[in-house]
Amino acid sequence: MPKNHLNNENPTYKKLNDLYSIQMAKGQLYETIITTKNINGFEKYQGHLKESDDLKTDDKSTNTNGPVNAAPIGVLCKNSKQIVLYLYEGTHTVNNIHNQDYFIVNITQNPIIFTKSTLEDLSDEYFEYYHEIPFLKDADAFFVCHVIKIKEITKQNDLGSSKMSIVTANVEEVVKMKSQAIPLNRGVYAVIESLIHYTRFELADEETKTSYWARIKEMDRLVKKVGSPQEKAALSRIIKEIEENFKDLD
Amino acid sequence: MPKNHLNNENPTYKKLNDLYSIQMAKGQLYETIITTKNINGFEKYQGHLKESDDLKTDDKSTNTNGPVNAAPIGVLCKNSKQIVLYLYEGTHTVNNIHNQDYFIVNITQNPIIFTKSTLEDLSDEYFEYYHEIPFLKDADAFFVCHVIKIKEITKQNDLGSSKMSIVTANVEEVVKMKSQAIPLNRGVYAVIESLIHYTRFELADEETKTSYWARIKEMDRLVKKVGSPQEKAALSRIIKEIEENFKDLD
Repeated sequence: MPKNHLNNENPTYKKLNDLYSIQMAKGQLYETIITTKNINGFEKYQGHLKESDDLKTDDKSTNTNGPVNAAPIGVLCKNSKQIVLYLYEGTHTVNNIHNQDYFIVNITQNPIIFTKSTLEDLSDEYFEYYHEIPFLKDADAFFVCHVIKIKEITKQNDLGSSKMSIVTANVEEVVKMKSQAIPLNRGVYAVIESLIHYTRFELADEETKTSYWARIKEMDRLVKKVGSPQEKAALSRIIKEIEENFKDLD
Repeated sequence: MPKNHLNNENPTYKKLNDLYSIQMAKGQLYETIITTKNINGFEKYQGHLKESDDLKTDDKSTNTNGPVNAAPIGVLCKNSKQIVLYLYEGTHTVNNIHNQDYFIVNITQNPIIFTKSTLEDLSDEYFEYYHEIPFLKDADAFFVCHVIKIKEITKQNDLGSSKMSIVTANVEEVVKMKSQAIPLNRGVYAVIESLIHYTRFELADEETKTSYWARIKEMDRLVKKVGSPQEKAALSRIIKEIEENFKDLD
């Protein structure tokens, strides 16, 4: 990226220091939308793209039929300036990240954007460009990531094995676009759901108890993957409480 | 409450106009902690309680062994100044609300407070008092509610019938205590969870498909109860997509 790209800031955007300034915490995993472009597909539009020296977005005409991609992806906050992604092979996102050094992580809680980007390709009007990297113009915040390492692994699971890429990236810029920008983390919801099951345990029949118990153990696995130390402690406490009061569960 | 209780504001608190100013929306249901006191239990402490004319909290000594209660409860935002609660009979919260006109709804995302207030009685040090009504001192925000109607109903369910109270209350004051105060709503998480199941549908065996499908339909019922119009639309879209692509599901 150009060295002096932030000399003239657009007042509608607020540039922040790092991931902690948008309430991300080390070791937690967030639900985000990652936007990438297919650099090969872009070659034919290179004539229209221009280096921008400020925080203004590029002219929208550069996006006409641009091969951009948006996909919902979990982002692990490694520290204030670094993230890790676990990506299955064969997706547009992983291909685009293999082919270029930069991508953008978009922070949003918009259920329509999560749904559309899962079920279909988002149309051009959802995107703008920040230094030629696509982002979602409706995002609450976004950050620009620079890939520093890609490790390919084979993961064993119930259905055999799948190839995955573990992508480590440095966070180069964090831009807040709305006054409230909260990254989506499923930890507290795993706690709430477990507590709801807990309160219904006493009155439930054996079959329902078994299904609640399976669900609570799933929520425990989830918080261990995505949650905060407090959320992990909460789930441990709920599980201990059930184990002490309902001994016949496995 | 005293008419002129807000003449001298405590600068650490920010008084807001209504529920919309803490991001609540009409028709949505939020996970909160409701704090109440047992007015009968309080009679013996009346000598210590004093009318306060400002936003300062009461002297902590008034709380010694005070029969206060905190419980996780869903709060339906009826409009900017009114809420509705559905309470099962027999709990401290419903008894206390039957016996006095005021209670406080606490906004927090703290998983430890949700867990402790479900599993045990919160100890005195969690509470402070705002015009003699208990609230959680660690809350991000809270609002004072004045009961205007209680309707008792009998609800039929799988296990027979249970008595419930439907409590309608006016919101008299909204107080923000932290710069970020976001009420917990499960809607967007129901969408995220459904999307995760959706993306795994194709590779799943029949039994797993059936359990994913049951879960997605449960998430649909959940967003209909708690969520925003966008979240409801997202779930409808996901369900339509599955029904079109996997016709043999019921």
